[in-house]
Amino acid sequence: MSPERYARIQQVLSQRQHDLTLLMEEVHKPHNVSAIIRTADAVGIHQVHAVWAENPALRKGTALGSQIWVKNKHHSNTAVAVAYLKNQGMQVLVTHLDDSSIDFREVDYTKPTAIIMGQEKSGATAEAVALADQSIVVPMVGMVQSLNVSVAAATVLYEAQRQRSEAGMYGESQIPDDEKNAILFEGGFP
Amino acid sequence: MSPERYARIQQVLSQRQHDLTLLMEEVHKPHNVSAIIRTADAVGIHQVHAVWAENPALRKGTALGSQIWVKNKHHSNTAVAVAYLKNQGMQVLVTHLDDSSIDFREVDYTKPTAIIMGQEKSGATAEAVALADQSIVVPMVGMVQSLNVSVAAATVLYEAQRQRSEAGMYGESQIPDDEKNAILFEGGFP
Ligand SMILES: C[S@@+](CC[C@H](N)C(=O)[O-])C[C@H]1O[C@@H](n2cnc3c(N)ncnc32)[C@H](O)[C@@H]1O
Ligand SMILES: C[S@@+](CC[C@H](N)C(=O)[O-])C[C@H]1O[C@@H](n2cnc3c(N)ncnc32)[C@H](O)[C@@H]1O
Repeated sequence: MSPERYARIQQVLSQRQHDLTLLMEEVHKPHNVSAIIRTADAVGIHQVHAVWAENPALRKGTALGSQIWVKNKHHSNTAVAVAYLKNQGMQVLVTHLDDSSIDFREVDYTKPTAIIMGQEKSGATAEAVALADQSIVVPMVGMVQSLNVSVAAATVLYEAQRQRSEAGMYGESQIPDDEKNAILFEGGFP
Repeated sequence: MSPERYARIQQVLSQRQHDLTLLMEEVHKPHNVSAIIRTADAVGIHQVHAVWAENPALRKGTALGSQIWVKNKHHSNTAVAVAYLKNQGMQVLVTHLDDSSIDFREVDYTKPTAIIMGQEKSGATAEAVALADQSIVVPMVGMVQSLNVSVAAATVLYEAQRQRSEAGMYGESQIPDDEKNAILFEGGFP
């Protein structure tokens, strides 16, 4: 590994946000999953979560290409995934097109946060909505019924990035040194 | 047309932002174009612009499906398109991955604004960068080199939406009544 690349990876790792993540619930189009993971990486997410009961190819990671610098943890179902995230002390938000949802900008994303994104056609399941702490929506003033799922994810994530930048959370390294070294030595980074 | 639908369309039209738009410069994947137009509609954009010299299918609108409630104006090349937008008194911004670009949040989007989005592989042309008033970038702290183009468009547009909401610009109708009626009567809305 060149010294420049080593320095770059150190820098990226030092800005990773360990307590910000996404849960993709059956998001199934590879171009959407890919766009979501690129955005996650860009705002400093270290690991995303997914429930892909219906999509073995995504589960095996074959559709994710080279985007291995964002770790992906697969869960067998939504209840297991949400329990896992809550166990980590995260507030669990679900993006949900409903009048009872609050505007996504009203949330405090400096808290440990996981955001559930729903399936392209059907949206988040009733189970996800019931289990989450809060439903959020990105406001729309047009004729279309919904945004593309990767667009909705990015809109919420860049609001989190904005709040976390202002709070100085990209300055301090959140990853313990030994884990950082493990990542560098295991070649977990491309 | 049902009274509910008529009321809905009136409401949508009254929130349209006539002085906010996008210029797609050879953005060519239909799923990206479609996601961009959905987002444009959602933030109240009435008309988008495109240069699709290399993509006759998009030029004819065949790939855009039913998204006819956002008008699309095609220009033969980038110089013509930028001149057209500047003539309308717009500041022209180009999204551009370069150290000389300023953070997209530093811009005042309550001014009449057009935002250029570049081609998926090659990005915005040197000509677009030269002709635009300002280059902007969405900050990234990860390993990937760029965001998906529809994600980048949405991130910038929702910052514009945020600023314009705060400025009360979604309250006042910007479309003259005669144009509104023309749209309603011509069935320009689905
Ligand atoms: C295309 S939408 C699903 C539409 C589905 N008919 C519904 O009503 O949920 C796919 C996913 O994108 C996200 N999404 C789309 N538009 C959104 C918005 N305006 N606010 C929040 N999330 C949105 C949600 O995660 C949603 O589950
Ligand atoms: C995938 S990128 C093109 C990458 C190309 N290699 C380059 O360097 O421009 C396609 C388009 O998405 C937009 N884009 C992607 N990431 C962006 C970012 N971080 N800031 C601003 N625009 C971005 C720009 O419009 C860009 O032209």
